[in-house]
Amino acid sequence: MNKKKKNVKELTEEFTEDEKKGFYKAIYSRRDVRSHFTSKTIKDDILSRILNAAHHAPSVGFSQPWNFILIKDINTKIKVKKSFEEEKIHSSELVEEPKRSKYLSFKLEGILESPINLCVTYDPSRFGPFVIGRSSIPEAGLYSVCCAIQNLWLAARTEGIGVGWVSILSNDKLKNILELPDHVIPIAYLCLGYVDEFALKPDLEIAGWLSRLDLKDVIFFEKWNIKESVDWSKIQDLIKTDFDTLK
Amino acid sequence: MNKKKKNVKELTEEFTEDEKKGFYKAIYSRRDVRSHFTSKTIKDDILSRILNAAHHAPSVGFSQPWNFILIKDINTKIKVKKSFEEEKIHSSELVEEPKRSKYLSFKLEGILESPINLCVTYDPSRFGPFVIGRSSIPEAGLYSVCCAIQNLWLAARTEGIGVGWVSILSNDKLKNILELPDHVIPIAYLCLGYVDEFALKPDLEIAGWLSRLDLKDVIFFEKWNIKESVDWSKIQDLIKTDFDTLK
Repeated sequence: MNKKKKNVKELTEEFTEDEKKGFYKAIYSRRDVRSHFTSKTIKDDILSRILNAAHHAPSVGFSQPWNFILIKDINTKIKVKKSFEEEKIHSSELVEEPKRSKYLSFKLEGILESPINLCVTYDPSRFGPFVIGRSSIPEAGLYSVCCAIQNLWLAARTEGIGVGWVSILSNDKLKNILELPDHVIPIAYLCLGYVDEFALKPDLEIAGWLSRLDLKDVIFFEKWNIKESVDWSKIQDLIKTDFDTLK
Repeated sequence: MNKKKKNVKELTEEFTEDEKKGFYKAIYSRRDVRSHFTSKTIKDDILSRILNAAHHAPSVGFSQPWNFILIKDINTKIKVKKSFEEEKIHSSELVEEPKRSKYLSFKLEGILESPINLCVTYDPSRFGPFVIGRSSIPEAGLYSVCCAIQNLWLAARTEGIGVGWVSILSNDKLKNILELPDHVIPIAYLCLGYVDEFALKPDLEIAGWLSRLDLKDVIFFEKWNIKESVDWSKIQDLIKTDFDTLK
């Protein structure tokens, strides 16, 4: 069998139990990583694989409106870190004690420690102005970029690479630092690197800041806020069971 | 070994080659599905598994701002389909012939044919008003919901279930139909069902509407639009090779 035929066969066949297991392992062990970065270099073939996974996300009207700016220049990282520090102080003024001190004590980024920083951007002009599926809901272009980010995040996890998303930043400063054109929007600033540990739960859950909601609390039936429905009785019972894989 | 210890061990160990293969198969074989739905019922345990994968997406400040409204009421589907038809005609007026006729000929949704419709919503008030990481970039809450949608989409694919995202809709009408509160934003309206085929490439690529960009065209080094950099020479060469798994 030639390579293409083999690839087609593999991609179209049903997932085996082992393949599913691999997939769900990525979903449940992915973390937002802010520490534990090691000095191990990310090889270029692995980085390419992660970026290619991102590039194969769905996009509205197949517009592929994303760009990935790879960063290792320490001068850029220092400028971004400065913006983080400013925004962190600024945002802490919005929260009262004792939560404020707790918030300020959290480690919320690994900009300097991670070997690679990556800015993912949205270019609304890509293949435009008419993009199928973007006329009624213009934000759909943004949503595509987020799907690409999630692909990238999960792919990195399977490779043993941690990703941290820094959203405590000034987008105006970021645009300036990375010389983005006016019409391009930075969506995510990510820190990538091997880590010596993926925590079993999100940092903010471990720290007692917030708890994970029960699955049953985020699912409604037919309309907003309907939690009981005779037409959905079986799944209603199922989602009441504990879905936490670590209990 | 008890169940928790076994789960911890599995989640923290490096991914095997087979586990990685399972993960990347989901990435590369996932499609936006608008046809080929079969009448096979989605079992409740499988649907719960998909929803739980979505619920384990990253979220800014661990705010988990998503809800999932499961829909099978035909009256709701008919109302949503009507909004789709109106918006499709409306948006077709934005594009000139001969593209207009081509656009109008595309099958762009499976609202009535798919057994389950699912609206994913964003609630900015969840755990608010102060959410860690959302003060500087308020859109970060939206982005979390999109990450959940991508988890759901990939999980569905591993289960053999197709997902189609309908973005040719009036959000105002959708809010009205599903009785969403004013502050809640519908992010995605999805059609879910088993399909008898996952196409090898996106429909719009097959139809010749747009081509997939080369990976090298979406990657920049250090700043916007920098495609050549001595510090990144190896990956520059690597991403010039053809990453299309089907060639």
